Amino acid sequence: MSLTQQNHRASTDPGLDGARALVAAGLRDAVDGLHPDLGQLASYHFGWSAANGTPVSDESGKLLRATLTLLSTSAVGAEPTAGVPGAVAVEMIHNFSLLHDDIMDGDALRRGRPAAWVVFGAGMATLAGDALIATAFDILRSTESSRGRRSADLLLAALHQMIDGQAADLSLERVSASEVNADHYLRACGKTTALLEAAAAIGAVLGGAQSATVDALRQAGRHLGLSWQMANDVEDIWGDPAATGKPARSDLVRSKKTIPVILALRAGNAAAIDLARLVSEQVRQPTADHLQAQADLIERAGGRRQAEELSARHLALAIGKLAESDVPEAGRQRMDELFRLILGRHGVSMVAGG
Amino acid sequence: MSLTQQNHRASTDPGLDGARALVAAGLRDAVDGLHPDLGQLASYHFGWSAANGTPVSDESGKLLRATLTLLSTSAVGAEPTAGVPGAVAVEMIHNFSLLHDDIMDGDALRRGRPAAWVVFGAGMATLAGDALIATAFDILRSTESSRGRRSADLLLAALHQMIDGQAADLSLERVSASEVNADHYLRACGKTTALLEAAAAIGAVLGGAQSATVDALRQAGRHLGLSWQMANDVEDIWGDPAATGKPARSDLVRSKKTIPVILALRAGNAAAIDLARLVSEQVRQPTADHLQAQADLIERAGGRRQAEELSARHLALAIGKLAESDVPEAGRQRMDELFRLILGRHGVSMVAGG
Repeated sequence: MSLTQQNHRASTDPGLDGARALVAAGLRDAVDGLHPDLGQLASYHFGWSAANGTPVSDESGKLLRATLTLLSTSAVGAEPTAGVPGAVAVEMIHNFSLLHDDIMDGDALRRGRPAAWVVFGAGMATLAGDALIATAFDILRSTESSRGRRSADLLLAALHQMIDGQAADLSLERVSASEVNADHYLRACGKTTALLEAAAAIGAVLGGAQSATVDALRQAGRHLGLSWQMANDVEDIWGDPAATGKPARSDLVRSKKTIPVILALRAGNAAAIDLARLVSEQVRQPTADHLQAQADLIERAGGRRQAEELSARHLALAIGKLAESDVPEAGRQRMDELFRLILGRHGVSMVAGG
Repeated sequence: MSLTQQNHRASTDPGLDGARALVAAGLRDAVDGLHPDLGQLASYHFGWSAANGTPVSDESGKLLRATLTLLSTSAVGAEPTAGVPGAVAVEMIHNFSLLHDDIMDGDALRRGRPAAWVVFGAGMATLAGDALIATAFDILRSTESSRGRRSADLLLAALHQMIDGQAADLSLERVSASEVNADHYLRACGKTTALLEAAAAIGAVLGGAQSATVDALRQAGRHLGLSWQMANDVEDIWGDPAATGKPARSDLVRSKKTIPVILALRAGNAAAIDLARLVSEQVRQPTADHLQAQADLIERAGGRRQAEELSARHLALAIGKLAESDVPEAGRQRMDELFRLILGRHGVSMVAGG
């Protein structure tokens, strides 16, 4: 599931809304500059047009990562428009990863429609993803300044970590129950956390913040990403497929050792032992009963509760990083709202137990 | 077919050989820094190891693009080692494109072995290609200088043009015989020319050349690329599959309108008219007889001769760009040798007729 499936607006602030409109225009300009075949695919992927190119929407999704960048720029005292190139670049890298990951993960649906690779073929979707990487760095290059270069460095580091995280994520499906540990999981989280870190940090850099402030916002982005990934893992197992728009328990079907599974396996109780046996016996095409038995054991071992607590704790840490920073109260509050909006639908509470 | 299938060494120069060894080491270091699953795939792709990770070779292929970069650095009066980061980055981008293009083109063989996507799956090969893009720019970023930044700009522009060229190349299979023209073809050539341009230009930039010299070398690289692509197109139709290592007439099988076809179609003679009819009737799975009839008509219309002449003319232009530049005689001569080496196996002669 994508953050862009959110059903709320992050803001009704006129300055921010103006900057978001510039981001949407920047995305369209960049797509217009691509080879027409790639532009058509990208326009479909972004939801602007039908597969045949007919315009269907003026919307550019919720642009939550772009919004994080713009809020970060604004939080450090600059006009949100200063963050626009970074916000566009971050969205480009996000959409590159969606295009490629959907192919790798075999996900046939994206934003409620057939994924681009299903409609245009995996080859063209791969090439369009490649084009979005190049475009992202182009946009930052066009801001000829040390801030632009520093932003490009941050985005490049994020790109590395996302790719590394995706490889680690795929390996979570193959690693055995006895070997998997928190380090495996945290490495895989890079696919989610890296770009949220970069979005927050780049916004601050383009706003002219000092490095300590940039780092505080970067860390806030990281904790936000961890909180969100963990909440997402819980939702995969116990969420309502009708609400999430994803097939039920797809992680368990793929034997992916997500955080509730890892925490359950190391709980050291009877349910943990039974779960380890069940996970090791993992059949190729588990039935719904088989998956239910796993989910029940994970919950009985304490994996669900601990994962929810950990997710809440990372949200608290994200907000704490903002509080420790020199970002003024008003800016902090609006980022805080965005964080809660992002996590809210997962029902993550701020009361971190345990 | 890849330039790296060449069977000759480009040089026995000790300074150049030392720099080439540094490039090979740089490629290995970069691959070692990837997620182990991606590193294993990349190591197989580069020919260093078997699919299971067992080392099989200390060689890194012929590194012709890297050699072009290093020769360019040396030609402008710097030590070849100054060009090493650029040479490594150029090879990384080249190998990204091989990994992704083999998937798109459905090419199951690469360097005489099953392509990486056949062995490791298209998803992992896609991700490894993505990782090589990020790594290429990382390497240039680590050279913290205006020369490094200028090189990164050139490489980014090349990446764009390669992706655009690959999209245009795929569209050459769908464009009709009556619509196709030289502009379509030249745009598709970007997939080949862009990186050769960048390789030559980046070498000069890292060697500290003035912008006029950089531009002369860039243009030489572009003409080299055009000459090579055209020779490659001729070889696809009339080359010996045993010598090229490619399936016979794969471009004709895919209805790809390469330069001999385009030149034949616009020849305005009887054979051109017959060819246009045959190409428009293009059947899904043409027989060898069908392909032979096409090849004969292309040749009778004059497409083969004109394509060979055009290829030779671009090689002459490449060498002419060097001669016009302020690159000293010794440096020009060694680049000239490399150009002829690259084109030599296609039998491109320097005598440009017509």
